[in-house]
Amino acid sequence: MALVVQKYGGTSVGDAERIRAVAEHVARTVRGGDQVVVVVSAMGKSTDDLLRLADEVSSVKPKRELDMLLTAGERISMSLVSMALAGQGLKTASFTGSQAGIITDTDHTRAKILEMRPERIEEALRDGYTPVVAGFQGVSTDRDITTLGRGGSDVTAVALAAALKADVCEIYTDVTGVYSADPRVVPQARRLAKISFDEMMEMAATGGRVLMLRSVEFARRHGVPLHVRSSFTWEPGTWVVEEEVSMEEAVVSAVTDDTSEAKITVANVPDRPGLAARLFRELADKGINLDMIVQNTSEHGTTDISFTVEKGDAEAARLACEGVRELLEIGEITADLGIGRVTLVGAGMKSNAGITAKMFETLASHDINIEMISTSSIRISTIIRGERVVEAVRALHTAFGLDA
Amino acid sequence: MALVVQKYGGTSVGDAERIRAVAEHVARTVRGGDQVVVVVSAMGKSTDDLLRLADEVSSVKPKRELDMLLTAGERISMSLVSMALAGQGLKTASFTGSQAGIITDTDHTRAKILEMRPERIEEALRDGYTPVVAGFQGVSTDRDITTLGRGGSDVTAVALAAALKADVCEIYTDVTGVYSADPRVVPQARRLAKISFDEMMEMAATGGRVLMLRSVEFARRHGVPLHVRSSFTWEPGTWVVEEEVSMEEAVVSAVTDDTSEAKITVANVPDRPGLAARLFRELADKGINLDMIVQNTSEHGTTDISFTVEKGDAEAARLACEGVRELLEIGEITADLGIGRVTLVGAGMKSNAGITAKMFETLASHDINIEMISTSSIRISTIIRGERVVEAVRALHTAFGLDA
Repeated sequence: MALVVQKYGGTSVGDAERIRAVAEHVARTVRGGDQVVVVVSAMGKSTDDLLRLADEVSSVKPKRELDMLLTAGERISMSLVSMALAGQGLKTASFTGSQAGIITDTDHTRAKILEMRPERIEEALRDGYTPVVAGFQGVSTDRDITTLGRGGSDVTAVALAAALKADVCEIYTDVTGVYSADPRVVPQARRLAKISFDEMMEMAATGGRVLMLRSVEFARRHGVPLHVRSSFTWEPGTWVVEEEVSMEEAVVSAVTDDTSEAKITVANVPDRPGLAARLFRELADKGINLDMIVQNTSEHGTTDISFTVEKGDAEAARLACEGVRELLEIGEITADLGIGRVTLVGAGMKSNAGITAKMFETLASHDINIEMISTSSIRISTIIRGERVVEAVRALHTAFGLDA
Repeated sequence: MALVVQKYGGTSVGDAERIRAVAEHVARTVRGGDQVVVVVSAMGKSTDDLLRLADEVSSVKPKRELDMLLTAGERISMSLVSMALAGQGLKTASFTGSQAGIITDTDHTRAKILEMRPERIEEALRDGYTPVVAGFQGVSTDRDITTLGRGGSDVTAVALAAALKADVCEIYTDVTGVYSADPRVVPQARRLAKISFDEMMEMAATGGRVLMLRSVEFARRHGVPLHVRSSFTWEPGTWVVEEEVSMEEAVVSAVTDDTSEAKITVANVPDRPGLAARLFRELADKGINLDMIVQNTSEHGTTDISFTVEKGDAEAARLACEGVRELLEIGEITADLGIGRVTLVGAGMKSNAGITAKMFETLASHDINIEMISTSSIRISTIIRGERVVEAVRALHTAFGLDA
């Protein structure tokens, strides 16, 4: 008998019919002899509806009240799923984040979990119940209702799986797993049967849309195996697990793409210690997150620094740099919104030479110019023109033997 | 500086515009120097929408889960009202029934309040906040979410007013107060400036639709003055208060009507001790609530017993009586769905003779036959044909000098 945490996203519980289908699947799992803890997101677009109402009511929206409002969404879906499970003949009860013992800090709308006290869930399991838990929410040390931010329901599921020592955390979504590239970009993309936490994290960080970085990090830290699969086909999907020796056979696992960022270039930065740090402090103080950072080799006493930021932060980043331009004696500052990133991810890279060369050769054979490059032991990211991203991803997917 | 509990019903917070109007009124009250605790119902028809969703999802609906589902309604309205108050520049925070310390028994969908522990509300008031509390809900001694049943938001408001020792509990609704008769039946009906708890209870019990019996009882027991008024006109409405000497001047305060009941008549009940009790036990065991009960004077060893029940319970009541017909040696059992009740309510009745006579004379002059009669010290109820109710109410309203 295994203990399985099953998390269902918004589209998976989008209407009454979908909820009944979810309940049937949970009941099948339970009748198969496993224990299940269900974690649910709010139904479909209900969160958007609530936010629209809030906009109509007031332009001032305290974050504490936003959290109170949005958590109504999971309350509705979890009680409906629980009713549907009762309709399947299961003993069941739903629990809010607070009742499930998800204790967070007081940072409303993006709270972090401080502690898990899932005694009521454990008790329910002992008594033969199938508990249904609201994703995305917790209760703060100030006893206020909090939400966990984007991807928060996945975090709830992983945290519960870790605390309950579950055998697996199944993430049900509207895609059938993790692919070697975005299937909308590369029609020949293959579903990966297995991927390591490290690879999944690199994918999440470079444009993979299935899982948020945060929940994968959490799962890795607590050793919770993830199984990403579809609530529409119910077929086996992709396992995200600790790296195994056999994984090294595939040099490259996936190609990801991301056109959500802009590139800021600061020219002629004097090559003095502490100067770049001063510039980045300025950006951090404005709440701007930098992603890729590249500094050219210094020549005749100055250097160029380029970094990427979310497109929405580009103008703020440019202005922040302009603000210290005279002080730091730096040169021209440019913001380029026309870039795209293409990334190779693969655990096998670290022990395989020649990947970078092959990547460059492939892009060169398509006349695609590389503007920035950044690597980790299992990833190579390149910045190219945004309009060449689709072509680059397809070419690399073929060149590295990933086509189905 | 007064402490005012203001309760807003579903139509009062029915949409964003109404919520903003409520926030403006609360802000006016606060700027006028009073402290306000706001209690809200779910928005308009949102409870019906949630129930419809539940029907679509499952025919099995555990009451614990129904309570979890429905309480999402007040969570949405209270956070929106709180945001609108923040938009008015007030310090504000919303609280669930659980956070407001409303401790109930475990009788889901119709829980009773066992204890009030409103420490967080008191703390919020001390800190200059205007708290917004979810009506209709509490937390059980089993730490589960409960609802208080029909009229539950009024009960929340009255219970909070009592626990906080508020100066008044204002019940905002879509009518401008309590009237001497239903204005849809009697166009000349007058709004009552003041009415006693006892009269209000009799009105609630006999067809008055503004307040539920339960919240009036609660207010009387705890001496909480109620002020029933409109959230559409904001004009002063009706005060429900302890009886005062001056009230006795008006002999009759109001005429109520009710056509929601049926009359069951059991003929030829042997006049032996314990027999009627046996019959009523049978009905009670089936969960059927009896309202008016009348037993005719016994003649030649048998008696007729008539009682009224909700129309929906009429057939079940008839069958229950049939079930013990042979055992108890009783006669024919009939159910009459064509009745109506007309009631005079007035604290002055108890010290005024001749009210019954005048009531009978008035009905007789309209050729309206009285089928049953039942009285208390401040009420006279008569059962007549349902189709004569409107005529009877108008005639009595005029005869007792209530016309505006």
